[in-house]
Amino acid sequence: MRQTGRLAQLMQALRCLPGVGPKSAQRMAFHLLLGDRHSAQVLAHALSAAIEHIVHCRQCRTLTEGELCAVCADPKRDGSQLCIVETPAEVFAIDQSTGFKGRFFVLNGRLSPLDGIGPDELRLDLLERRLQSGEVKELILATNTTVEGEATAHYISEMARHFGVRPTRIAYGVPFGGELEYVDGATLAHAFNGRKEF
Amino acid sequence: MRQTGRLAQLMQALRCLPGVGPKSAQRMAFHLLLGDRHSAQVLAHALSAAIEHIVHCRQCRTLTEGELCAVCADPKRDGSQLCIVETPAEVFAIDQSTGFKGRFFVLNGRLSPLDGIGPDELRLDLLERRLQSGEVKELILATNTTVEGEATAHYISEMARHFGVRPTRIAYGVPFGGELEYVDGATLAHAFNGRKEF
Repeated sequence: MRQTGRLAQLMQALRCLPGVGPKSAQRMAFHLLLGDRHSAQVLAHALSAAIEHIVHCRQCRTLTEGELCAVCADPKRDGSQLCIVETPAEVFAIDQSTGFKGRFFVLNGRLSPLDGIGPDELRLDLLERRLQSGEVKELILATNTTVEGEATAHYISEMARHFGVRPTRIAYGVPFGGELEYVDGATLAHAFNGRKEF
Repeated sequence: MRQTGRLAQLMQALRCLPGVGPKSAQRMAFHLLLGDRHSAQVLAHALSAAIEHIVHCRQCRTLTEGELCAVCADPKRDGSQLCIVETPAEVFAIDQSTGFKGRFFVLNGRLSPLDGIGPDELRLDLLERRLQSGEVKELILATNTTVEGEATAHYISEMARHFGVRPTRIAYGVPFGGELEYVDGATLAHAFNGRKEF
C-alpha cells in the first residue's frame, strides 16, 4: 500500500513550507486530519484569503492589503529618513524595537547577478524615483551582512550619493548581552574596528 | 505598526501545525506570500480537498478517501492476523518495512482515562465485533511503549483472550545498528530480559 490520492497531495503541498521535509510533511498532514479539523479549515481559508488579498505596497514594496501599507499611508512618519531592508519581516522587526519613525523601502531580495537578480528585480527604479523627489535626506542601509547584502548596500549607497542623499549603515558589532568569548571572529573584528569614544 | 488583517490571521492559523510557534509561523507566512504563490495556492487547495474528502475507514479506522481503505478492500490480505496500532502513520510504517500481509485496526489514540479517552473513544466496539466474527486468530499489539500504550495493549489483550484470540506483542529491544553504550536503560533492560537462544 502506498500513500496515494489527496493525502499524498497534501503531504507534497506541505513541503513548500520552509524547513519542511517528507517526514515533517507527513506529521503535519496527519496532525491536520486527525486533530481539530476546524483549525485545518481555518488555515486553508486564511491561506486562500492571504494569497488573494495581500499585495506589495505600491510605494515601499512591503506586504499589505491596500494600495499603500500602514507606514506609507501614515502622514506622521518622517519622509526625510528612508530605511532599506531586504524583507517585510525586517520592517516589522525594526518597527517593533527601534522607535524609528521614518519610512521604509523593501527590496524583497538582494543583488545576486548569478541568480539573475539585478536592480530591475529589486525595483530600484521605484527607489530612484523617491531619491529624485528630494524628500529623502538620509538613507539608512539595513541589508544583511552577507556578501550579497554588502554588495547591495554598496550599490544603493552610490545611488544615494548620486542624488545628494547621505547614506548610513546600521552598526554591526557584539550583540547586546553577548560575551566576547562566544562571539565569532568576523563580528568581533567589526566591533573592534568600529569602536567609539567612551 | 502592528501585524493586522489577513497576514496576522494567516500567522495565527499556521500555529495549528505541530511544532510551529510565533516565529516559525511568521517565517512560513512570509515564505508563502513572498515566494512562489502558485505553491501556496496548491497547498490551500490540497488542504481543503483533504479535509473534505478524507475520512476514517469504516472497518479499520485509518484515514482513507473511500468507505474502505486500500488494506481493508484488498481480498488478498490475511484476515487471520490483525495488527493494532495507535495512528494511521504507523500503518504506513509497518506496511512499508515489515512485509506484514495481515490487516490493521487503528485506535487513533490510546486509553487515557484522565483525558477522557476510554474504550468508546477508541471505537473498541468495532474491534470487538471483528474478534467476535471468528476470522481473527492472532492479534498483534503494536501500541507504543508509553504508560498509556502499555495499558491499552493490556486492555485489548484481555479482550482478545475473551474471544479465544491469541494476543502477541511486537519485540522491544536494542535498535538494529544501535550501540549498547548509547541505548537508554529501559530499552537495554527490555532487550536483556527478552533474550533468546542463539
